[in-house]
Amino acid sequence: MLSKNQIKFVNSLKQKKFREEHNLFIAEGAKIVPELLNSPIVVKQLFATSEFLRSHSISNLIERYEIKESELERISALSSANEVLAVCEIPKYELNSDDLKGKLTLVLDDIKDPGNLGTIIRIADWFGIENIVCSHETVDSFNPKVVQASMGSISRIKVYDLDLIEFLQQKTTNPQQPIYGALLEGNNIYSEKLSAEGLIVIGNESKGISEEIQKLITNKISIPSFSHYKSGSGEAESLNAAIATSIICSEFRRR
Amino acid sequence: MLSKNQIKFVNSLKQKKFREEHNLFIAEGAKIVPELLNSPIVVKQLFATSEFLRSHSISNLIERYEIKESELERISALSSANEVLAVCEIPKYELNSDDLKGKLTLVLDDIKDPGNLGTIIRIADWFGIENIVCSHETVDSFNPKVVQASMGSISRIKVYDLDLIEFLQQKTTNPQQPIYGALLEGNNIYSEKLSAEGLIVIGNESKGISEEIQKLITNKISIPSFSHYKSGSGEAESLNAAIATSIICSEFRRR
Repeated sequence: MLSKNQIKFVNSLKQKKFREEHNLFIAEGAKIVPELLNSPIVVKQLFATSEFLRSHSISNLIERYEIKESELERISALSSANEVLAVCEIPKYELNSDDLKGKLTLVLDDIKDPGNLGTIIRIADWFGIENIVCSHETVDSFNPKVVQASMGSISRIKVYDLDLIEFLQQKTTNPQQPIYGALLEGNNIYSEKLSAEGLIVIGNESKGISEEIQKLITNKISIPSFSHYKSGSGEAESLNAAIATSIICSEFRRR
Repeated sequence: MLSKNQIKFVNSLKQKKFREEHNLFIAEGAKIVPELLNSPIVVKQLFATSEFLRSHSISNLIERYEIKESELERISALSSANEVLAVCEIPKYELNSDDLKGKLTLVLDDIKDPGNLGTIIRIADWFGIENIVCSHETVDSFNPKVVQASMGSISRIKVYDLDLIEFLQQKTTNPQQPIYGALLEGNNIYSEKLSAEGLIVIGNESKGISEEIQKLITNKISIPSFSHYKSGSGEAESLNAAIATSIICSEFRRR
């Protein structure tokens, strides 16, 4: 049986304020939680059905509570609860200047939708991009919807919350690390020379890359549209931020 | 003022049963509705703020109701209503055998998430893919969440609801139209020869392409992972269906 305090505590972690206060986040489901159990993420508590607890090997260091699915519904952030909810420690990463050397890194300028951020983390994982630098205005990467949309990739990708302008200003002096940005007037990504090292800036869902950040972009790129509709007579105006990210990452990696 | 019957009627269109009965769907927001007003889609009714009605030219054939944002909340399917809700006729498209000639077409095998389907419709629009064939089990393309995620592209892309096995069986006899399918054991899409005409099958979010449909695939393709994690020690297992679609469409079109 769940106590009232447990229910209140777990539900509080759906809010950023309490996640920061306790340095904890929640993850759910029979697909994601086993991945976290096998990752460097520290799982503190498990609220799970007897079936889940029986069929997984779980360290003795983890507090566990056997509960029914109906009880799980009371703490779940999902539309339908699924076997298990884990309370985990938020990992703290520090970005050292050499960490991005020789690598591709995503830089997110105010991604607001948790589904988009989670999907971008999953894309980074697929394309071997280890680090994502987020602006302070980007949605919290330990928001439950981000964690779920990342499908476990949150345990493998390092996400940093930084002042983007400060971060990018330090980088502009390094010709080894071009700063790519997807902009409507950029060069066709399919024919552009793309480096194996650099930063790729992705803009906000409705506003794109902010003006101040645009000034720091060294290589403007663009995904051309193949629409049959002429501009003005109606055509897709843009791609979703996560979709644009996936096409860009695919282009960088295939070469 | 909205009448009780109006509220009930518009809200009923959030369910597929009533959309089919009345042959109507809803679309919302100051970004999407103007696109529909400028498209071949027949808009029947507008529920809008005075600002919206004043700043858009609207045919006399469209019934309009000037309402407050607070009233809009009572009929909106969005988490926060936005200026306007349109009630529109569901267009009826019939697929003739020559319609797909010389073209790329997406074939969706049980896409269940409305956000994914809407995003796929938007991707098709961007990449100049005019037709999408959906299995009967795919989410209804006039579900309000699909319409919103398509960002107006629903007015330009023809979506057909067909028996996929029957449809694909007719196609297997046509060597001009290869049937591509994204499968884990497929050939590397980056080095595979890709045709300018053909069908691209995208599988269900969790199960992928069903076994019966897999048998009808003539060209198996796969998006390679660049993850640093070795299989088993944890790695991204798959890409989201819409993400995979975007990378595949990008590869077909860039060549």
